[in-house]
Amino acid sequence: MTASLIGENKCFGGLQRRYQHTSKELGCDMHFSVYLPPSATDKTPVLWWLSGLTCTDENFVQKAGAQRAAAQHGIAIVAPDTSPRGDQVPDDPEGSYDFGLGAGFYVDATQPPWSEHYQMYSYITHELSDVLFDLLPLNSKQQSIFGHSMGGHGALTIALKNPGRFRSVSAFAPICAPLTCPWGEKALAGYLGNDRDAWRTYDTCALIEDGADLLPIKVDQGLSDEFLEVQLQPERLKAACESRNHAIDLQFHDGYDHSYFFIASFIEAHINFHAQYL
Amino acid sequence: MTASLIGENKCFGGLQRRYQHTSKELGCDMHFSVYLPPSATDKTPVLWWLSGLTCTDENFVQKAGAQRAAAQHGIAIVAPDTSPRGDQVPDDPEGSYDFGLGAGFYVDATQPPWSEHYQMYSYITHELSDVLFDLLPLNSKQQSIFGHSMGGHGALTIALKNPGRFRSVSAFAPICAPLTCPWGEKALAGYLGNDRDAWRTYDTCALIEDGADLLPIKVDQGLSDEFLEVQLQPERLKAACESRNHAIDLQFHDGYDHSYFFIASFIEAHINFHAQYL
Repeated sequence: MTASLIGENKCFGGLQRRYQHTSKELGCDMHFSVYLPPSATDKTPVLWWLSGLTCTDENFVQKAGAQRAAAQHGIAIVAPDTSPRGDQVPDDPEGSYDFGLGAGFYVDATQPPWSEHYQMYSYITHELSDVLFDLLPLNSKQQSIFGHSMGGHGALTIALKNPGRFRSVSAFAPICAPLTCPWGEKALAGYLGNDRDAWRTYDTCALIEDGADLLPIKVDQGLSDEFLEVQLQPERLKAACESRNHAIDLQFHDGYDHSYFFIASFIEAHINFHAQYL
Repeated sequence: MTASLIGENKCFGGLQRRYQHTSKELGCDMHFSVYLPPSATDKTPVLWWLSGLTCTDENFVQKAGAQRAAAQHGIAIVAPDTSPRGDQVPDDPEGSYDFGLGAGFYVDATQPPWSEHYQMYSYITHELSDVLFDLLPLNSKQQSIFGHSMGGHGALTIALKNPGRFRSVSAFAPICAPLTCPWGEKALAGYLGNDRDAWRTYDTCALIEDGADLLPIKVDQGLSDEFLEVQLQPERLKAACESRNHAIDLQFHDGYDHSYFFIASFIEAHINFHAQYL
């Protein structure tokens, strides 16, 4: 279980690194990126970033401007890819952007032909976590997680499904209720089959309704986001939290869309939020 | 003389816009990007960004993280493309990255076939400037300019060749002396022909030695930049400034390379520098 360093750039006094490794869970070679703040040690907390549809590990690293606040707070940020990769990995035969390559939805697929490679939930939560803490002397006892859109869904569900492991979770424009939106219904039906009960364990609102342990949650949502009403549904997340009497820091922002320009504008606020708990 | 708005994203309370227009100087359609800080008015100063080899107007906009400091200081940033574009524009027949498309070097070419389209100096200093101030009510009396690598060369030469027009100039890892480096010799011979005297008007060090009016200059250079010794030669810029008894804020940074991770790390310092004069 090793990873090769394939890129390193000094950034805000720390190091932005890119690694390649062979994943057993996914049956393919994968890339992931890690930002190490200046003077990273075994006390340095880890913040996981999960990206949205079509992204690799590089979009966030290049576009979010997260290194500045991560350096200030002394937090490492890990950015995985969004799906298995390579010629041997099946893609949506229709070539859509919202299923298959770049669209793993952070689930463990049970349906052929997807089940052989599309095991992103186990990859992130077990295999990549082991690779990371084997590779770098970071503090596995201080972890938080955040993400964007599909990756916001991933961050919220992974935090809720792993009680005690993450101290806080946040998301930009997350898919809050994949059970009841077109992106989610397509992905969950494809990867998990038609039994909708199986989908509930990958739906943030259902997990909260079904009694998951709760943790500090922050969500930001642009009001000019073209996906807001049909795909994202933050009001469902708010209702689910309210049904459990759990405070959620959900903020709407006039004029902001679904892009990395929105993420960059609020990345410092998210890292400040996590730094309170790390 | 019009430009069409083809993209707009809210960013740090302001607007990151992209425009398309037809350039007479270049004989082709061009794109450029403008960041408007919150509440931009006709008092808002303009900071020009010139990009390096292979870039379009989008690299800086997506990767430098400049919008944050620009919003704080209330400064607009204009980012042009780096060469003429389109099927009718000749490219280096050898397909190199350092001549032709993406490599206009901010000169007015005199040699065929380049002279028909490669008029980037006139495009930036006259045509695009007119388009910009026609289009947006910004303050043409308060302008500064900065850039990276080939764009650092462009910013320095354009500032020195237009006395009184720019209040300050800065650069990340600029090509300081194209007369005496491989990138510069190739580009200037190609665009201007073999008369090296003609090259002096596009060489920062030669312009300073030849008596150009000087202005506040800031340059940052990474010490792990693979192009430092052969292509960039900041020590020649320092010597030229010293020969005129002109103070230059030239700083070297251990471990930083030629990438946008370096630019992002020091972009706030550059915008703060220009804000002193704007």
